[in-house]
Amino acid sequence: MAIITLTTDFGEKDHFSGATKGAIYSELPDVKIVDISHCVLPFSIPEAAYIIQNAYNSFPKGTIHIIGIDSELNPENKHIALKLDDHYFVCANNGIMSMICSEIAPEKIVEINIHDRIQTSFPVLDVFVKVACHIARGGTLDVIGKTIDKIKPIKNIVPYVNEEKTQIIGSVIYIDNYGNVVTNIKRDFFETIQKGRSFEVSARNYKFKKIHQKYSDVVNFETPEEKRHDEGRGLVVFNSGGFLEIAVYKSNSTTVGSASSLMGLGIMDAVSVNFTKAY
Amino acid sequence: MAIITLTTDFGEKDHFSGATKGAIYSELPDVKIVDISHCVLPFSIPEAAYIIQNAYNSFPKGTIHIIGIDSELNPENKHIALKLDDHYFVCANNGIMSMICSEIAPEKIVEINIHDRIQTSFPVLDVFVKVACHIARGGTLDVIGKTIDKIKPIKNIVPYVNEEKTQIIGSVIYIDNYGNVVTNIKRDFFETIQKGRSFEVSARNYKFKKIHQKYSDVVNFETPEEKRHDEGRGLVVFNSGGFLEIAVYKSNSTTVGSASSLMGLGIMDAVSVNFTKAY
Amino acid sequence: MAIITLTTDFGEKDHFSGATKGAIYSELPDVKIVDISHCVLPFSIPEAAYIIQNAYNSFPKGTIHIIGIDSELNPENKHIALKLDDHYFVCANNGIMSMICSEIAPEKIVEINIHDRIQTSFPVLDVFVKVACHIARGGTLDVIGKTIDKIKPIKNIVPYVNEEKTQIIGSVIYIDNYGNVVTNIKRDFFETIQKGRSFEVSARNYKFKKIHQKYSDVVNFETPEEKRHDEGRGLVVFNSGGFLEIAVYKSNSTTVGSASSLMGLGIMDAVSVNFTKAY
Repeated sequence: MAIITLTTDFGEKDHFSGATKGAIYSELPDVKIVDISHCVLPFSIPEAAYIIQNAYNSFPKGTIHIIGIDSELNPENKHIALKLDDHYFVCANNGIMSMICSEIAPEKIVEINIHDRIQTSFPVLDVFVKVACHIARGGTLDVIGKTIDKIKPIKNIVPYVNEEKTQIIGSVIYIDNYGNVVTNIKRDFFETIQKGRSFEVSARNYKFKKIHQKYSDVVNFETPEEKRHDEGRGLVVFNSGGFLEIAVYKSNSTTVGSASSLMGLGIMDAVSVNFTKAY
Repeated sequence: MAIITLTTDFGEKDHFSGATKGAIYSELPDVKIVDISHCVLPFSIPEAAYIIQNAYNSFPKGTIHIIGIDSELNPENKHIALKLDDHYFVCANNGIMSMICSEIAPEKIVEINIHDRIQTSFPVLDVFVKVACHIARGGTLDVIGKTIDKIKPIKNIVPYVNEEKTQIIGSVIYIDNYGNVVTNIKRDFFETIQKGRSFEVSARNYKFKKIHQKYSDVVNFETPEEKRHDEGRGLVVFNSGGFLEIAVYKSNSTTVGSASSLMGLGIMDAVSVNFTKAY
Repeated sequence: MAIITLTTDFGEKDHFSGATKGAIYSELPDVKIVDISHCVLPFSIPEAAYIIQNAYNSFPKGTIHIIGIDSELNPENKHIALKLDDHYFVCANNGIMSMICSEIAPEKIVEINIHDRIQTSFPVLDVFVKVACHIARGGTLDVIGKTIDKIKPIKNIVPYVNEEKTQIIGSVIYIDNYGNVVTNIKRDFFETIQKGRSFEVSARNYKFKKIHQKYSDVVNFETPEEKRHDEGRGLVVFNSGGFLEIAVYKSNSTTVGSASSLMGLGIMDAVSVNFTKAY
């Protein structure tokens, strides 16, 4: 039984996600539909790119992912379907897939052309659902579009490295539900530059010389609980998606504060890593 | 396999929607449950009416829709089940269904009487689930209630037209996730009055002489991207549900602004259409 | 077909809940996954305890409940799996289960030891999913952990009763989507102390001498609608979970106000019940 996932900026209130699911079940009564997120900030391509990259590969091979962000068809925003890593993606060609595609080359990309005469203000319902159901029934990408070579890139996604390779300058690409601050510096990239050297991560005037394995590693559990001041302390981890993240243990933006609120870090802010010169 | 949808004001946090789903699966392990929305503003009958009207008919015929808004049984608020357009609806008789029923006559309406002795503060769980599962098993409406002729109307749902038919005065009935402003003026109604005349849509001091097919039609893609100022400009469309809507292309209430925030338009505000006198 | 439910503080936006569902379907394509809530306040054990207690027993016997709150493994926070009331629960041993366990003794509790060498910052995905799928396939708890006797308690969950049994002092443990104020005073407990005496419920300077069966019982439907002032009046009910709750009929925190906003009641505030002395 095929799985179709939904990642959109529809929000949780409007009828859009419900109507989309109804349309899928009308075509394919036995499919499984899974919500990844409907709370992407409206029209935020970087957020959608981050969320889908971190969610898709937990799903079984063959899963079809509909991404409904900025998906209105126009001369600069075509609809595409991709096969990549044995998953399928249906979305607009607006940069959303470039984060994943920079790591794994797509097997095939098509520009969807089934709708040359459909005028619609709800393309997820009227186009993406049809394409996803076609794929779920075992249909090929060739039937619904013409092959293209490459997709539109997303800007500012790769961190900068200086010539001496003593510094990485990355930026904040996502703030999660705990107010943790996710950067565009990935573990593999970091380790390739680091080559075992010691380092210092800087964000505003906060500095960290260590990257923890997990959030609670910042706590010294041998100190009696009432004497600890570790909760609420900042730390750096590579998160479960492999991104360098500045976090606060047991953070909560609405009460005790979070990395984002306590350190004043927001989307696009710089986070740098300085390495000692000698290898 | 039957589908049961849920449209409620339970919110996303509390246990109410989870408990409801558990109760449905306890009665019918093989049913499909689809969330339409749990984020209707508490007790907002117009919001619920708008959401269910726009979502229901994407679902397959035979789908059963539970609407859990203001559903506590009392002398003025009876429980009903309807068959309409080959869909089933289970809700309170408080006006929620009158928007749909004004367009499509129900085949049958019953006032539910299975619970004359149930005292409950959670009628969705204790009554609506039982009724929905009864219908899902193929049971008839006659078994769970007595037929009634008509349902309670919702107020102010039809726009006003002056005697000369030169003006429609409608009102804002819904603000969507993008801050787009939805009015109660539907395309068919508009076109019946318009009869091909030119027109001007007015909301506060904003005026529009054109209705676009889709949101990005406001953009002139032949102008180079850096010279365009179209994003952020207001426009009027008939939305995917057929309602006249005042929108801003690529709007976002929390960042660049939206039709609602930029034009100061809220629920119940007037939106008028003036037609040239001559036909 | 097994059911696995999810109760977490992941929020609705991030990829965490989607990734968790993908991982479950990758192991068990035919399972049913039901979201109970992903909007528990980050790290709020009392909220999670309240939500799962009120949701779980609507589900069929044999359902497996994953609770992903404060679930990072560390020396003070072990992972456990429980069988209780013919349901299974997989969570951290941090007090979440003590509210349910204070009413129903668990049949079996194990401390999970399948992961002694897994270092993970996403234990729901890497550990809880594996345990839940093991149980869903019919596996026993003995295989995935060693039996323990008792779990960590949650603090301040039982209301105080004075020696003369003339007073209960409880506290607010939850504010629901309608702004209704839920206390830790349960109906059975109340009635055991009350023994039929008359009483007065006090919260700040608000006092109530009656407990209603349901919310709209506060309204006198024989008074003409335009003369009533009952909507917006405070009342006390035992809610559908059996907890004493201070509510406002047709409340809405963002518009007309709610029990929480109108009476200024928040989490941990005291709510007392005074009984007349004579039995």
